[in-house]
Amino acid sequence: MQFSLKVNSKHSQDIKDIMALAKGTNLISFAGGMPNNKLFPVEEIDILYNALDRKTKAIGFQYGPTSGYPPFVGTLKRYLKKKGLPVDTHKLLITTGSLQAISIITQEFVNAGDNILLENPSFVGAISIFETYEVNMHNIPIDKNGIIIEKLIEKIEDLHNKPKFLYVTPNYHNPAGIIYSLERKKALLKVLEKYDILLIEDDAYSDLYFNEDEKYLTETMVSMKSGAEVVYTGSFSKILGPGFRLGWLLATPEIFEKSENIKQALDACTSNFTQILANEFVKSGELDKYLVFLRKEYKKRKDILQENLLKYMPKEVVWNEPKGGFYVWLKIPKHIKATEILKITAKQNVMFIPGRVFDPLSKKDDRIRLAYSNVEIEDIEKGVRVIADALKEYI
Amino acid sequence: MQFSLKVNSKHSQDIKDIMALAKGTNLISFAGGMPNNKLFPVEEIDILYNALDRKTKAIGFQYGPTSGYPPFVGTLKRYLKKKGLPVDTHKLLITTGSLQAISIITQEFVNAGDNILLENPSFVGAISIFETYEVNMHNIPIDKNGIIIEKLIEKIEDLHNKPKFLYVTPNYHNPAGIIYSLERKKALLKVLEKYDILLIEDDAYSDLYFNEDEKYLTETMVSMKSGAEVVYTGSFSKILGPGFRLGWLLATPEIFEKSENIKQALDACTSNFTQILANEFVKSGELDKYLVFLRKEYKKRKDILQENLLKYMPKEVVWNEPKGGFYVWLKIPKHIKATEILKITAKQNVMFIPGRVFDPLSKKDDRIRLAYSNVEIEDIEKGVRVIADALKEYI
Repeated sequence: MQFSLKVNSKHSQDIKDIMALAKGTNLISFAGGMPNNKLFPVEEIDILYNALDRKTKAIGFQYGPTSGYPPFVGTLKRYLKKKGLPVDTHKLLITTGSLQAISIITQEFVNAGDNILLENPSFVGAISIFETYEVNMHNIPIDKNGIIIEKLIEKIEDLHNKPKFLYVTPNYHNPAGIIYSLERKKALLKVLEKYDILLIEDDAYSDLYFNEDEKYLTETMVSMKSGAEVVYTGSFSKILGPGFRLGWLLATPEIFEKSENIKQALDACTSNFTQILANEFVKSGELDKYLVFLRKEYKKRKDILQENLLKYMPKEVVWNEPKGGFYVWLKIPKHIKATEILKITAKQNVMFIPGRVFDPLSKKDDRIRLAYSNVEIEDIEKGVRVIADALKEYI
Repeated sequence: MQFSLKVNSKHSQDIKDIMALAKGTNLISFAGGMPNNKLFPVEEIDILYNALDRKTKAIGFQYGPTSGYPPFVGTLKRYLKKKGLPVDTHKLLITTGSLQAISIITQEFVNAGDNILLENPSFVGAISIFETYEVNMHNIPIDKNGIIIEKLIEKIEDLHNKPKFLYVTPNYHNPAGIIYSLERKKALLKVLEKYDILLIEDDAYSDLYFNEDEKYLTETMVSMKSGAEVVYTGSFSKILGPGFRLGWLLATPEIFEKSENIKQALDACTSNFTQILANEFVKSGELDKYLVFLRKEYKKRKDILQENLLKYMPKEVVWNEPKGGFYVWLKIPKHIKATEILKITAKQNVMFIPGRVFDPLSKKDDRIRLAYSNVEIEDIEKGVRVIADALKEYI
């Protein structure tokens, strides 16, 4: 029997190939952009779960509205309002993780062959979505302050068909670790307003800043006064647990309504069970307490990583010290392929993700993404040494 | 700003319009095809959850493999094997509800404008998916033993372009309440083999038979020897709780692999948290015990409904008594529109879903779907009386 199997994603395959290298049992992994199992608020959720009455628990077993479990939508709106997000003019859709939010928006606006814009490097999960929908990806380089505005304008002017949207992760970028400056955010909005291009602002990490003084940098573009249209996506994956599969999108009513219809056709509704737990977690104030703890824990890991990078990396390797989030993005000399380095370090049980995975064109391979979120503190030094030694062989 | 908002579903809108009629606080609802909140195994899940160790709970907070939480995949395979399903030759993908499984298969095989085949009436969730993907739906009537084979052949021969698949819900059909005879299942497989058309076998209700003697009727087509290719979908929504958002698809390795890639781009993975609970529920034997309870409870509701239908319905109204599942499908005289009847009964706080919602063409409206799964036993008589009285006005 012959099938017309349509879909393929080179980037998904890349990730699978990398993971296949991880054979050892005592892995030191800077690879996965995931929280550490030991840091999850298991005890807090235990207490909140056991305090629920039977009626509420039973609601957790039931279908819920496609847009989300209403008390949770209310709680999340209040939480986001405190962060300055426009929850009164925009509408909130709870999604099965923020990846689903990006998938919904892609289905909503893009047909196969349409143009979209994204950063280079970019979040590999989003790249995989765009590949799956056979979208034409046009990538714009970034520097330490964000997307390069001149390059963006150049690209827009160059394209025959207007891109359907620009997708960015401005706060504690995955994989680049940077945060956009406020000036860059404002400049970006101006360009998008001028060319009438929709912005997808993916913001999974903004609660994870390392210094209270720099919190102001996390201001979101959707909350800035501007004539540009913005769809904002967020997630509980980094601030509670990805296993809950809870994300959201915040959009103007027209976009919200279509998104809700697509969500209905994708999985009917998000789990009431996990929404009820997340609702208690936010409402009780536990999330705020947990964030204080997480910021400290991730900063600690970042500090130790930074210290060891300075100690072991050859001077040809450069990076920006992150101000929040999960990632350090090393720039290695152009003649070295990160994918080759990984093959060497993997034999010594040290894993990371090479740059080409985050390049929409799967080319640029002179970068190494180190995630410090899920590595054991006592392993950081050894891991860095193994990577540095492998690099030195090529320099 | 002008957007190219593509998607629309007439059937989703129909459901919204119907729900908007439900204004009262003391509703008697035969509308939603959902379990009853009072029947959920809340206490059993409580015990299983609290017996988990911290390490397992923490895994519940984490990302998992796209194909599913491995211990759960193993447990479910063993469970399905006992039901006779071909888990050794086929591969199992855990999905965020079985609606996602249908959505994945649709994305995998169908482009906008392609032909597919489905029953008339058909599950409205699936119709909404097909509408969202702008599929050409060709519908085949059913009788009390299943899809009408001659009409199916006629339709296939009629079409210029081969349909990408046939979608059916053979066991305790939603909305028609029937179960396919084994002869019909076999005849269907023969036709599909001959014309080389993929079958999507959606089987959310087969565990909910009312008589052990008739269990043999639930035999699945995917497990029958045949040259036809079958993708089988199942769900925990009716046998644990829809709030867990757990379903699955069982397919040959080639289809599985592409489905896994699409799933990756839709929501990365299904909730580990709810998979861990479902794993305990199945593994401990609680599911088997719970099914005995559910069969009794739903049979009780069906019996009372049947009794009251016989007592109150005018002789012009006919139906098949269901042998399992959630639904009775009333045939009313052709000149009466079920949608009009609903407007009358809704004023008296009695809800059901009119036939046109389940017609892919939104036309045939001489049917009424009564779901007895979520109605209170003491309300059944009054509910039936209100609907019967409204019908009598038109007869």
